Amino acid sequence: VTGAKRREAGVAILGAGFMGSMHAAALRQLQVLGDQDAVVPRLVAVADSDPLAAEELAARFEIPMWTTDWRSLIDDPRVDVVTIATPNNVHVDMAVEAARCGKHVYCEKPLGTDLSDARRALDAVTDAGVTTLVAFSYLFNPVQAHVRSVLQQGDLGEVISFRGTFDQDLLVDPSAPFNWRMDRAVAGPGALADLGAHVIAIALHLVGPLAVVSSMMRTLVPSRQVSIGAAVSRAVENEDEAYLLGRFASGATCVIGASRVATGRKVGLSYEIQCTRGSVTFTHERMNEFGLYRHDGPADRGYTRILTGPSHGQYGRLYPIAGVGLGFGDQKVLESAALFDALASGVRPFADFHFATEVTAVVEAAERSAEQAIWMPVEGATAGAGVA
Amino acid sequence: VTGAKRREAGVAILGAGFMGSMHAAALRQLQVLGDQDAVVPRLVAVADSDPLAAEELAARFEIPMWTTDWRSLIDDPRVDVVTIATPNNVHVDMAVEAARCGKHVYCEKPLGTDLSDARRALDAVTDAGVTTLVAFSYLFNPVQAHVRSVLQQGDLGEVISFRGTFDQDLLVDPSAPFNWRMDRAVAGPGALADLGAHVIAIALHLVGPLAVVSSMMRTLVPSRQVSIGAAVSRAVENEDEAYLLGRFASGATCVIGASRVATGRKVGLSYEIQCTRGSVTFTHERMNEFGLYRHDGPADRGYTRILTGPSHGQYGRLYPIAGVGLGFGDQKVLESAALFDALASGVRPFADFHFATEVTAVVEAAERSAEQAIWMPVEGATAGAGVA
Amino acid sequence: VTGAKRREAGVAILGAGFMGSMHAAALRQLQVLGDQDAVVPRLVAVADSDPLAAEELAARFEIPMWTTDWRSLIDDPRVDVVTIATPNNVHVDMAVEAARCGKHVYCEKPLGTDLSDARRALDAVTDAGVTTLVAFSYLFNPVQAHVRSVLQQGDLGEVISFRGTFDQDLLVDPSAPFNWRMDRAVAGPGALADLGAHVIAIALHLVGPLAVVSSMMRTLVPSRQVSIGAAVSRAVENEDEAYLLGRFASGATCVIGASRVATGRKVGLSYEIQCTRGSVTFTHERMNEFGLYRHDGPADRGYTRILTGPSHGQYGRLYPIAGVGLGFGDQKVLESAALFDALASGVRPFADFHFATEVTAVVEAAERSAEQAIWMPVEGATAGAGVA
Amino acid sequence: VTGAKRREAGVAILGAGFMGSMHAAALRQLQVLGDQDAVVPRLVAVADSDPLAAEELAARFEIPMWTTDWRSLIDDPRVDVVTIATPNNVHVDMAVEAARCGKHVYCEKPLGTDLSDARRALDAVTDAGVTTLVAFSYLFNPVQAHVRSVLQQGDLGEVISFRGTFDQDLLVDPSAPFNWRMDRAVAGPGALADLGAHVIAIALHLVGPLAVVSSMMRTLVPSRQVSIGAAVSRAVENEDEAYLLGRFASGATCVIGASRVATGRKVGLSYEIQCTRGSVTFTHERMNEFGLYRHDGPADRGYTRILTGPSHGQYGRLYPIAGVGLGFGDQKVLESAALFDALASGVRPFADFHFATEVTAVVEAAERSAEQAIWMPVEGATAGAGVA
Repeated sequence: VTGAKRREAGVAILGAGFMGSMHAAALRQLQVLGDQDAVVPRLVAVADSDPLAAEELAARFEIPMWTTDWRSLIDDPRVDVVTIATPNNVHVDMAVEAARCGKHVYCEKPLGTDLSDARRALDAVTDAGVTTLVAFSYLFNPVQAHVRSVLQQGDLGEVISFRGTFDQDLLVDPSAPFNWRMDRAVAGPGALADLGAHVIAIALHLVGPLAVVSSMMRTLVPSRQVSIGAAVSRAVENEDEAYLLGRFASGATCVIGASRVATGRKVGLSYEIQCTRGSVTFTHERMNEFGLYRHDGPADRGYTRILTGPSHGQYGRLYPIAGVGLGFGDQKVLESAALFDALASGVRPFADFHFATEVTAVVEAAERSAEQAIWMPVEGATAGAGVA
Repeated sequence: VTGAKRREAGVAILGAGFMGSMHAAALRQLQVLGDQDAVVPRLVAVADSDPLAAEELAARFEIPMWTTDWRSLIDDPRVDVVTIATPNNVHVDMAVEAARCGKHVYCEKPLGTDLSDARRALDAVTDAGVTTLVAFSYLFNPVQAHVRSVLQQGDLGEVISFRGTFDQDLLVDPSAPFNWRMDRAVAGPGALADLGAHVIAIALHLVGPLAVVSSMMRTLVPSRQVSIGAAVSRAVENEDEAYLLGRFASGATCVIGASRVATGRKVGLSYEIQCTRGSVTFTHERMNEFGLYRHDGPADRGYTRILTGPSHGQYGRLYPIAGVGLGFGDQKVLESAALFDALASGVRPFADFHFATEVTAVVEAAERSAEQAIWMPVEGATAGAGVA
Repeated sequence: VTGAKRREAGVAILGAGFMGSMHAAALRQLQVLGDQDAVVPRLVAVADSDPLAAEELAARFEIPMWTTDWRSLIDDPRVDVVTIATPNNVHVDMAVEAARCGKHVYCEKPLGTDLSDARRALDAVTDAGVTTLVAFSYLFNPVQAHVRSVLQQGDLGEVISFRGTFDQDLLVDPSAPFNWRMDRAVAGPGALADLGAHVIAIALHLVGPLAVVSSMMRTLVPSRQVSIGAAVSRAVENEDEAYLLGRFASGATCVIGASRVATGRKVGLSYEIQCTRGSVTFTHERMNEFGLYRHDGPADRGYTRILTGPSHGQYGRLYPIAGVGLGFGDQKVLESAALFDALASGVRPFADFHFATEVTAVVEAAERSAEQAIWMPVEGATAGAGVA
Repeated sequence: VTGAKRREAGVAILGAGFMGSMHAAALRQLQVLGDQDAVVPRLVAVADSDPLAAEELAARFEIPMWTTDWRSLIDDPRVDVVTIATPNNVHVDMAVEAARCGKHVYCEKPLGTDLSDARRALDAVTDAGVTTLVAFSYLFNPVQAHVRSVLQQGDLGEVISFRGTFDQDLLVDPSAPFNWRMDRAVAGPGALADLGAHVIAIALHLVGPLAVVSSMMRTLVPSRQVSIGAAVSRAVENEDEAYLLGRFASGATCVIGASRVATGRKVGLSYEIQCTRGSVTFTHERMNEFGLYRHDGPADRGYTRILTGPSHGQYGRLYPIAGVGLGFGDQKVLESAALFDALASGVRPFADFHFATEVTAVVEAAERSAEQAIWMPVEGATAGAGVA
């Protein structure tokens, strides 16, 4: 980090795929948002094992350096921040190495493929004292910051329950071929870690720590062709859908679901928070609004559909009036801003490695629970109601 | 049941409260629906422990007989059918006695306050060979019959998951006084039996028997004043909210929730059924429509909002064109029609005592599970993410 | 009208088709609603030119008299009220004759096929001093009474604009055959009188008299086969769609549309009322809710979706709790109640012949305007933007 | 325009306010979208009459030149394209001058303050043969391109009617002070030109040229304080709300409304297109979806809510999967891309000066109509229905 007022921080992007280009684009946009005392990103390098990808990204974003050897970048003095947008199982090694070199780390989720992996990263960055951010992108929709502040103001009373879901239809076709997301060594767990983790992150951020969980998981399609039409199949190694019941430390109840085999859902991230004096609803498919019910409101109560605007979270950093509509890219800009704001203020971002490790702890407890769950048989169930 | 083509069946109504008057009104409407070979109800008697209530209902509906002694009606030869709209803990005694006298029984839900209670009723009506119906009213929205037929036709493939909720805000205020619904001896279980049972009924009807469940329950407000502003409180004896995970015999997954402390929800009965080739959504608050997603549909796929009309279930018995809107009373007419259709056809209605006993078995398994559940602690959870 | 406290009024139903049976059913339900000092309908006779229809309705509803000669009923001393559910062009003759005999009149809309027709009826009932009601059914959804009271309370300020639509898809297929609704002699005007009249009625009721209008009408399908597949076609004599701009006497602006060739719409009656301090939205396809925006509300303003309940209009006469859902039949019960309440109270119902005549005056002014409208050509329009 | 494959075009931004910064940001994003044969923008200069604004924008976006004298930039050989984001009444002078110097022009809407103004610009660019684009931003939501292609494919049949609205609440408070939008010399017409023009643009693009219109306009708040709390007021010189009826050259009907005094609406741009075999609905407040009804679809027809994705228009240029959500900024990127794609392909963009002139012609015809409209009085209207 250099300069006096408007300081610049050099950024190296690790991973030049779609998500790497999203990082580059978000950081470029952040660069021009123009706050006075900001720390501003400057893209200085990109690394990818595929040289064509690295070169292409560098050319497109006018990044002066590219390489296939990410380790060579990490110790470069021009690099202050490393962003990690590589396969899940490489995240932690990169983060640990970056921390060792004193670099700040902006990492795609999940932090690692399991809890011990995540802890290894957490320990490294803690020891190094660097600033970290994990890309739970949906947390950076201004809705979430606003809902958190509404909950904290206390008008809605105490949280009774959080119920959330992340559904997607990408794997609903049994003919969709095997990909790295189903490979436990690369991806870790399945739908719960990939999709549900976003819901868990929102739950932890808005309601606080989860104390206990009980979970059910299922792999709907047990094996998939290695490519479309291939004769060879490969076993799917993690779950297609997962559900958990839980209790927060506060006593509030929790129900979370995640499915990558949910027809009709694209980015089907939704939640409802029931409180003693009101409630909140949200669904990403309509990301520029949320629902609010105030039990103590005026007569003619009901859910109010609120369009986001400058009074909600950091919306005003992007647009000066309500209702114009933020997109996923805007969300990503606000996400990256969280890291650079932290570099400017010295206050660690809430979605840091510590937070990401807590999310992973919930996923891991759910996996343990699903393996060991004791189920209660329904008496006489086989007698056969229903669609026989 | 008398007469040749359009036969009449004499009906005695037990319970002259609001639900008793709903029975009377529904049966009066059914009387004029006018199918050729129908068995048509004729109201012949009403009983209530409160003579004023009984007399008032009789006068209003021009019912020739009223009494405070329900037992006296049950053996009356003018009575072919008994409808039961009394407190939960009396249902089974009445049903058993009616069966003993060879009367058909149309009973409000729940069948009894626990599974053994329900089974006592089931045994009695089975022995007597009478026709029965339990008033899972929401099952008689034409949407449900239509969704069942869509699922059975197979276009949507196999059911992957059923997720449903019934939320209500009636008890969200801690100052709402104690009533019989919180008295276990009278009501049996709480939110799950009172509200969730409707969701369970829909789940069993649409997806088939549930094999195993795992449940979490909570009483949010542990005691309530015996009346508004009273000095004396009484312990709430059943749950305010309940959640269950389950697996159907088919392997499909199940998530059901019920809350009587859900702000903003009036008759918040909703579900989503995910199948391998499509999905269905429904919410009673918009009871005249449902959502349908066909994975194999034309390009530009998405959830289609379908307004119900004559092509859906028995809608056409009430109105000849789509979109005019059915109400709760219409639903109740179709419910009562299910019994009288069964009397005409000899085919037992699906929502009979057998079915109701299966619903109760699920509730009971959920209660056992909630008492015995083994929870998986989340490691490090107390460290404290979120709203601390 | 006879009796002391709970008086009965004998009703003769003219027209035994679907709408006649809706009248009979609504009046039967009204009979049991049970208010203390009510005037209660008793069905005493039915007339229809088709003797089978008359006899069938009489049998179904246990109506003691039926006839094919409606005039014979009108002077019967057992008849206090006449309901008219016959083709449009007969309404006025029946109403005039009923008034001459001192009978109260409950008439389906439109009151007549044109303004002079409506005025003839109005004059007759005014001279006779009888009570009248015209069946603008959607006005009796408790939403409308509630919105009117909200507007009158003044919290929303002054009305700026009313925009409403009634769309239906019944005639969207050019192969749909000719029916009486397209026959000007029988039906009068087309979409505007048949559908739009409901919107005009709501506009007049909620915002007050319309002073001037400017209109555009079109007959999309100029002729239709006299029956499905017939070789012979007949000219469609009235409009398939109509739009009007208008100004209320208050200065508020008005936009109303009506189409019977609107794909995807069943009972597509919707409106939005913009006021200086808030606004209201409603659509019949979701008839148990409305939207309310309060400009002076708490922070986080937006449209609140309010489920109707006992606090809205006469909802509580039907159901004691919110959210259960009213249907079209319930609306019809409240409509018929408006007449019998008026008979009990002596206060004329707002939707009487006077009101219906004002609705017809708007339709007639719109027709005149559509014939004579002066259009402003758009310069250079033929140059051809768009899909040419 | 320079270079062989990936050519660059130098851009001068005229106007350094919010919209100027939106131009700069959109062009920066466009720069990295990375198509092979693209013409890519490079920001080379910015002009603003306020030197601080110009300097700040230049610094933020690393633009090498800034000035307060826009004329000095226009003839600069480093400038290939001029973007205009200044007050409405300067647009045309700038565009004419740019054309004279052979620069391509990307201009905020409206093109001018009246039709003759727009034509002056059109003539200049036509003579110069330069490429032009007017920023009807909402046209560049991928929904619109997709709807146009659906309409052109013909599955929905012929267009029957287009109904659209653009409502905003920015001026609903009478205490909101006078600003340049109400000053006819600077802004031209009011709500119809400012907001309604977007709807007109969509109508022309999707349905084709409008032949005739009939319009009604109103200024709700006749004068406003010159600043908040000021003693001095100034007359509002253009309309607060406007409505028009129209006929397209194709015979289709048109209803368009625009209001800047509509409570509860932020960017309330909505439309419905009724066709003989289906219909389409859209509202910008939910800009990532649209509704589609196919009259010839499978059973269980209704409006399908379709989330946009890579199969819709140019969505895929921004994101590879559906449902992530585009924002206003993304729309602006696609808007600016339309100009640079045209520079690469040589095919003029549809939303060019010619098109913008047609939009202005509609606004002007509507103004003439509103001044001269002949209204049809409603007979007896003063008699007083409604809220008297």
